[in-house]
Amino acid sequence: MTARLMIGVIGAGQASERGRAWAYEVGRLLAARGAVLVCGGLGGVMEEACRGCDDGGGLSLGLLPGPDAKAANPWVSLPVATNMGHARNVIIAHSARVLIAVEGEYGTLSEIAVALKLGRPVISLGSWPLIPGVLAASSPREAVELAFQCLAVSD
Amino acid sequence: MTARLMIGVIGAGQASERGRAWAYEVGRLLAARGAVLVCGGLGGVMEEACRGCDDGGGLSLGLLPGPDAKAANPWVSLPVATNMGHARNVIIAHSARVLIAVEGEYGTLSEIAVALKLGRPVISLGSWPLIPGVLAASSPREAVELAFQCLAVSD
Amino acid sequence: MTARLMIGVIGAGQASERGRAWAYEVGRLLAARGAVLVCGGLGGVMEEACRGCDDGGGLSLGLLPGPDAKAANPWVSLPVATNMGHARNVIIAHSARVLIAVEGEYGTLSEIAVALKLGRPVISLGSWPLIPGVLAASSPREAVELAFQCLAVSD
Amino acid sequence: MTARLMIGVIGAGQASERGRAWAYEVGRLLAARGAVLVCGGLGGVMEEACRGCDDGGGLSLGLLPGPDAKAANPWVSLPVATNMGHARNVIIAHSARVLIAVEGEYGTLSEIAVALKLGRPVISLGSWPLIPGVLAASSPREAVELAFQCLAVSD
Repeated sequence: MTARLMIGVIGAGQASERGRAWAYEVGRLLAARGAVLVCGGLGGVMEEACRGCDDGGGLSLGLLPGPDAKAANPWVSLPVATNMGHARNVIIAHSARVLIAVEGEYGTLSEIAVALKLGRPVISLGSWPLIPGVLAASSPREAVELAFQCLAVSD
Repeated sequence: MTARLMIGVIGAGQASERGRAWAYEVGRLLAARGAVLVCGGLGGVMEEACRGCDDGGGLSLGLLPGPDAKAANPWVSLPVATNMGHARNVIIAHSARVLIAVEGEYGTLSEIAVALKLGRPVISLGSWPLIPGVLAASSPREAVELAFQCLAVSD
Repeated sequence: MTARLMIGVIGAGQASERGRAWAYEVGRLLAARGAVLVCGGLGGVMEEACRGCDDGGGLSLGLLPGPDAKAANPWVSLPVATNMGHARNVIIAHSARVLIAVEGEYGTLSEIAVALKLGRPVISLGSWPLIPGVLAASSPREAVELAFQCLAVSD
Repeated sequence: MTARLMIGVIGAGQASERGRAWAYEVGRLLAARGAVLVCGGLGGVMEEACRGCDDGGGLSLGLLPGPDAKAANPWVSLPVATNMGHARNVIIAHSARVLIAVEGEYGTLSEIAVALKLGRPVISLGSWPLIPGVLAASSPREAVELAFQCLAVSD
C-alpha cells in the first residue's frame, strides 16, 4: 500500500485543436501507466487530459480555483474545490512529481515557473519556449516517456 | 462517468484510543459505501481513518499542510501537498459534501466552523459539543448513516 | 525603525448596533495606542472598526476574501486582495499578535479557533462564549487593555 | 479618506549589486510619490526596496511566505505572515495595481506571469526579457515613471 504516483498536466482553458488532441493523448497514456493525473479541473487542456485519463481507466484530480466542485469538467474523478484562485496552481506544483505543459498562456507560464522553482521537472508540448530548464517534447508519447524518465532519475 | 462522492473526516493528530478506533471504523464504512475520504493527511484521527478506508478498499485524499507529499500518513492514497498550513482546512470544507468530526481540539473546531459557514453538514463523534448546527452521533455506524442521510436531503 | 504592532479585530459582516458601537470604539482605541488594525476588510464589525481606527488617525489593513481591493469598506487604509475566501482568516491569525472578537458567528468562531491553535491570545466582546482559552471583556476599553496586557506578557 | 495606492516590487532574495541598488532607489522613489510598497518581505530585492522606502519616509507591506512576522526584513513596516509559501505571490499580484520586477529568477517569473494574467501592468528592470506584455525600463526613475503612467491610463 503506497501513495499513488501523481503527474501534473497544465495548460489553458482555451486550446487549439492540436493542443486538445495532445492533452487527450497525454491523459490516456498517463492512465495506461498507472499515474494519477493532477490538473486545474476546468476546460480546454484540462478537460481533454481528464477525458483521456478517464477513457484510459485512470483517475484524475482536479484542483479547482473556485468554491464549488460542480465547476469541474465532467471527466474529473476527484474534484477539489480550493477557492484560492490562481494560488491553486502552486498546490498542483507541490503535489505533482513532474508536470507536462500543453500550450498555455500566462497562467501556464506562472505554473511552469513555480514548478521549476520547486525543483519539479517540467516537460513542454508546444508550451512556453525559451524558459531555461523546461524539457521540450514533440509528441504526447515522448512527453510521457520523458516524465517517467525524470521520475526514474529522481528516485 | 461522474465525480466521486467525497466525505471529510476531521480530527486531531493526537487522539484517544477510542477516537482512533472510531476514526478507523468511519474510514472503513465510508470505503464500503463507495465514498472517497478527504482529510488532512497526517496522524491520529486522520491516519486511522485512512487506514480504515484502505482496509475497506477505498480511496483517501490527504490535503497536507506542508510542501511535501511524503509527510502523508502511509495510508493516504492521494497526497496533496498544499503548503498552506491551516488554510488547507478550508479546502477540505469546500471539497467534502459532508464532514464527520472525531474528537479534536482547536484545529478541528476551526474546521467545523468553516464547514458550517459553507453550509456543509457536520456530524460529531465525541467532538466539540455546544456548537449549534453540529449533529451528534454515538457510533461510527450512526455517523456514516447520518452523513448519507444529509446527502440524500441535499440532492 | 521597526515593524508596526498589529492587532486583529474579527467579527461578522452583520452586527448588532451594540456590536458596531463596540467595534468602532475598539478601532479608535487601537489607533490611539499606535497599533495597526488588521481585519477582514468588509462590512459590519470590520467596517466600524476601520472607521474608528481612521477617526483615531490610525492605519488599518483589510485582508479581503476576494480578488479586488475595491471590495474593501471605505475606511480600510491598506486593502489586501487575497482571493482566498475564508482562508484569509488564517492570514489574519498569523499576522496579528492578539485578536479581539466582536460578536460574530461561524466565520468568527473559525477564526477564533485558528488563532488559539496558533497560540494567539483572543479577547471576546460578546462573541462565542464557552470556548476555553478566550478572554472575556465587558467593554472596548477593557478589551484593548487586555490585548496590551497579553502583549506585555508575551514580550 | 481613501485607500492608499499600492505598488508591488518583486524580485529574488538574492540579487546583484546593481539589482540591489535599483531596488533601493525604486523603493525610495515610490515613497516619495506617496505609494505604499508591497513585496514579499524577505531579503535581496525585497529588503533593499523596503529600505529605500523607509529612507523615503514611506510604508511597506511585506507578504511573507512563512508563519512568522519576525522573518520579515528589518525595513518592512507591516509584515503579513501568510504561511502560504509561493501562493503569497498571487496575493501580491491581486493587491498591487502595478508591479515593478527587479532582476529575479523562477519565483519572479511566476509572479510576473500571474500579474499579467490578472491584467496588472508589469515593468521590468533587468528582469525576465522576452515575456510579451512586460514593459522594459532602464532605470529606477523610468520604472517608477512608467508605473504611474500605467495607473493614469487605467484610472
